[in-house]
Amino acid sequence: MSDRNTFLAAAEALLGSRGLTRDSDLMEPWLTDWRGRFTGAALAMASPASTAEVAGLVRLCGEHGVAIVPQGGNSGMCGGATPDDSGTAIILSLRRMNAIRSIDQAGLQAVCEAGVILQTLHEAVEPLGMRFPLTLGGKGSATIGGLISTNAGGTQVLRHGSMRAQVSGLEAVLADGSVFSALVPLKKDNRGFDLKQLLIGSEGTLGIVTAATLRLVPALADRAVLWAGVPSLRAARALLLHCQALAGDALEGFEVMPQNTLDDVVAHVPGARQPLAGRHEWHALIELVADRSNVDRLGSLAEDLLASAFEQGLLEDAVISSNEAQAEAFWLLRDEIAPAERAKGPAVQHDISVAVEKMPEFVEHAVPLVEAAWPGTEAVAFGHLGDGNVHFHVIAPPGVESLAWQAGDGKAISSQVYELVTQWGGSISAEHGIGQLKRADLARLGDPVALALMRSVKLALDPQGLLNPGKLVSLDKDAATP
Amino acid sequence: MSDRNTFLAAAEALLGSRGLTRDSDLMEPWLTDWRGRFTGAALAMASPASTAEVAGLVRLCGEHGVAIVPQGGNSGMCGGATPDDSGTAIILSLRRMNAIRSIDQAGLQAVCEAGVILQTLHEAVEPLGMRFPLTLGGKGSATIGGLISTNAGGTQVLRHGSMRAQVSGLEAVLADGSVFSALVPLKKDNRGFDLKQLLIGSEGTLGIVTAATLRLVPALADRAVLWAGVPSLRAARALLLHCQALAGDALEGFEVMPQNTLDDVVAHVPGARQPLAGRHEWHALIELVADRSNVDRLGSLAEDLLASAFEQGLLEDAVISSNEAQAEAFWLLRDEIAPAERAKGPAVQHDISVAVEKMPEFVEHAVPLVEAAWPGTEAVAFGHLGDGNVHFHVIAPPGVESLAWQAGDGKAISSQVYELVTQWGGSISAEHGIGQLKRADLARLGDPVALALMRSVKLALDPQGLLNPGKLVSLDKDAATP
Repeated sequence: MSDRNTFLAAAEALLGSRGLTRDSDLMEPWLTDWRGRFTGAALAMASPASTAEVAGLVRLCGEHGVAIVPQGGNSGMCGGATPDDSGTAIILSLRRMNAIRSIDQAGLQAVCEAGVILQTLHEAVEPLGMRFPLTLGGKGSATIGGLISTNAGGTQVLRHGSMRAQVSGLEAVLADGSVFSALVPLKKDNRGFDLKQLLIGSEGTLGIVTAATLRLVPALADRAVLWAGVPSLRAARALLLHCQALAGDALEGFEVMPQNTLDDVVAHVPGARQPLAGRHEWHALIELVADRSNVDRLGSLAEDLLASAFEQGLLEDAVISSNEAQAEAFWLLRDEIAPAERAKGPAVQHDISVAVEKMPEFVEHAVPLVEAAWPGTEAVAFGHLGDGNVHFHVIAPPGVESLAWQAGDGKAISSQVYELVTQWGGSISAEHGIGQLKRADLARLGDPVALALMRSVKLALDPQGLLNPGKLVSLDKDAATP
Repeated sequence: MSDRNTFLAAAEALLGSRGLTRDSDLMEPWLTDWRGRFTGAALAMASPASTAEVAGLVRLCGEHGVAIVPQGGNSGMCGGATPDDSGTAIILSLRRMNAIRSIDQAGLQAVCEAGVILQTLHEAVEPLGMRFPLTLGGKGSATIGGLISTNAGGTQVLRHGSMRAQVSGLEAVLADGSVFSALVPLKKDNRGFDLKQLLIGSEGTLGIVTAATLRLVPALADRAVLWAGVPSLRAARALLLHCQALAGDALEGFEVMPQNTLDDVVAHVPGARQPLAGRHEWHALIELVADRSNVDRLGSLAEDLLASAFEQGLLEDAVISSNEAQAEAFWLLRDEIAPAERAKGPAVQHDISVAVEKMPEFVEHAVPLVEAAWPGTEAVAFGHLGDGNVHFHVIAPPGVESLAWQAGDGKAISSQVYELVTQWGGSISAEHGIGQLKRADLARLGDPVALALMRSVKLALDPQGLLNPGKLVSLDKDAATP
C-alpha cells in the first residue's frame, strides 16, 4: 500500500465514511472559489464532526506530509480556500461542525462551532432579543470559522469593529494536532501574548479555527436610514464627522457612492428609484440605530442631525426613511452596486483602505489617474467611507473580451492601484484578505519588516508548511510569486 | 578593551552622554520596582531620544549579546521592568521619548511616543474636547509604552476595553534592530497576521514599543455616580445586568466592595463617610456618563435606573451623586481601598479574573476557603465586577512579621488562590501581567499548549533571548522556575 493509501485508510478509519470522500462529484463544487477565479484539485475532502477529529486528522497529515486547505462556506474573495492543482492536499471542510454550542442571554455571548453559517447565528439570537453585530453579502454561506480566519468586515465595522472585535474566545487546532482552547471569555486576561489575535485573520496558515465565543449585542429597537446628496467626497467626510459628533454610538453605518454608480444601480434593479429629486456628485447612506435604552430619541436625533447639517452647508439635499420598507429600499441600492457593475461588463475590483481622513483626497487623485492611463475605462469608488475602506472598481472599455482584458490590462491596472494605495500608506486588502489572489502583490509591496516577521511566525508555528500552503505568506523570501 | 567596554563605548557614541549613564545614583531609583519586591543591577541605563537610536542600540546589544530590560514609568505591579541581579543587562528607559507627535481632532486620535506619561496625554487632549478613555492609579508615572506592553486595564474597561482596544497603530523595534512601523491607523487592514496584537501585552519580550497611534473619544459632558447597597455579590451581578440593559454604552464603570472593606476605607481616609445610612453586605459604585450627544437624558437615566432596580428588588438602598464633588468623594472611597489595606498590615494581593457570570460564585467559594485554611487571615475581594476582575487580597493575621509571613504563608496562599482560579477557568493575571512575579505560576498552571505556542513565538522573534529575559515566558520548558 502506498503512503498515500495508508494515509487515506487511516483518515477514513478516523473520520468514518461520512467524514471523508474522494467522490469527484461531491468534491467538485469545493475545488473552485465562488468567483470562479481559481480551480484546484484535492486528494480527498475531509469533513470532521468534532474538534477531536480535526486534531486527529491534522496529526495524521503531519505524519504523512499531507497539506491541508481549511474551508468554510467557500465564499471568500481571494481564493484562500482553494487548493492548488497538484491534487496532493486535502480540503478540510468545517461545515459539519455547525453546532451553536450555547447562547448566554445574560452575558450576551454565544459559543459557535466553525461551520455555523452567519445567517444561522443571526436567526438563532434574534428571537432572544439579541443580535450578532456583523453582516455582509455572503451571510447565507459564510461560516464563523471563515469569518474569523479572514477577519471579515462588512457594513457595521464603523460602530462594532471587524470580526476580530467580536471574538472573545477561541478554540483552534495547531499544526502539531494540539488543541489551543481559550473559549472561556475573560474580559481581562494578561497571561502573556494574546494568541487568539494571531490566529484571527491568519487565513488558516497558523491553525484551524474550530470554535469561538462571540459577543452579542442587544437587538435593535429601531433604525433610521438617511440618504444625503453632497457635492464631493470631502463634503461626505465632513458630514461623517458631523454625524459622529452628534450621534456618537448611534451611528452604525456610513456608505458612499458617486451619482453615476447610483444611476447604474437604478437602471439595473427593477422598480428602483433615485432617493433624491436632484442630482449630486456623491451620495451618502447613513444608518442610525437605537436599542430600547435610547429608542425614544432616535427620530429627533435623525431630524436634528439633518437640520444642523443642512444649516452648516454639509449637504445639498437629504431624506429620512419614513418606514422600514423605505430603509430596506435604500440599503438595496447599496447592496446592488456589485451586481449592477457586473452587468455592465468586465471589471477589476480592489478592496483597499487608507486612513479615513485621506480617503476623499485619495479617490480624487486615483480615479482620474487610472482613467487617463487606461483610456476607455471607468473607475468607480464606493463603500465604507467611515472605515476608510472603498471598493475601487475599474470597468473595462466597452466591447473588450473579458478574460483577455482581465489577464492583460486588468492585471496591470490592479498593480497600479495597489502601488498607489501603498504610496498613500494604505492597505491592498482592507477586508477580503490576501489568499492566493494578492500574495504576490503583498510580497512585492508589503513592508519588508512585517513580511519577515510573518515568515518567522509562520515557520515557528507550522514548520512543515502544511497549513494552507500557497496562501497569504510567502516562505521563499527571494521569490516575488512563490 | 574588554568586549563590555567596547559595547559601552559604542553605545555612548550612539546615544551621547545624555543617553547613557553608569552613575549609580542616577540608576538606583530604576533598579527596584515601585512596590519594592524586586531589586536588580544593570550594566548601564540607556535613554535614547528617538526610534532610530533605540534601533541602533538594540542592534548593538545583539552584536555584543547584551540583554535589554525596557522600562517606562517603572510602576508595573509584577517586576516586569526590573533587571536581574547579574548586572549584565542594560535598562532601556523610554522616558526621554515623551513627545505627543500629533493630535487629530477630527479623526479622534493621537500619536504618542512610548515615554508619554498617561496623565500628560489626558491633560493634552482635554482642552480640545476629547479624552483618552483609559485611566488607573499610576497615571502620574505610567507611560504609554508600558501601558501597551502590559495591556493595562483600569476602571473603564467595561465600556472602552483595555489598552489593546485603544491602540490603532504601533511602532516597535524588533530584536534584530529593524523597525516595525504601522502607525497609520487603518480601520480595516487584512494584510496577514495582525502583528501589533502580538506586541501588545508581550511585556517587552518580543520587541520594544517606541510609539503608538491611540484612539480618543469625545470629552464627557457630564457623569452621574451612583452608590448602591446590595445583599450579596450575586445581587450586585443582577444589578450590573440591569444597568447594562437599561444604560447600554452610558455605563462606564461598575465597581464593588464588601462592607468591611468600606469600613476600613472610611476609617483610613480623613473626613470620609459612608455613602449610605444603613449597612449592606456589598456596595456597588456605578458610573453613568454622557457626551454632548446624550447629556440631556443623563439625569433621568440615572433616576429611572435606580427606581426600576429598586422596584425589582435589585438593591437595598442607593444614592446618586448630587454634584461633581460628591462623585469624586464616591470614587475616592474606591481608590483608597489599596492604601487602607496597606495600613492594616501585610497582605498578599491577587489580580485575578474569571468569566463575569461566575465571579459572585467564585468569591463566595474562595473567601471562606482561604480564611479557613489560613486561620487569622482576612480575605477581601473588590474591584471591577463588570470585567470579571477582582483584586483578591488576603490580609495577614494581626502581629505577624511582614517579610517572613509574605515569604512563607503568603506565598503558599498565593499558590492556592492561583490554583483555584485556574480550576475555575480563570486567569492568574487579569490586568497586571506576569513579569517575574508570576512567571513560575504561569509555567506551572498555564495551558501547556498556550505555553508551547508562546515559547515558539518568543524563539522565532528573539532567538538570542536578549529582550527582557526572565520575564513572562519561560524558555526552558522543563524548569518550573527557570
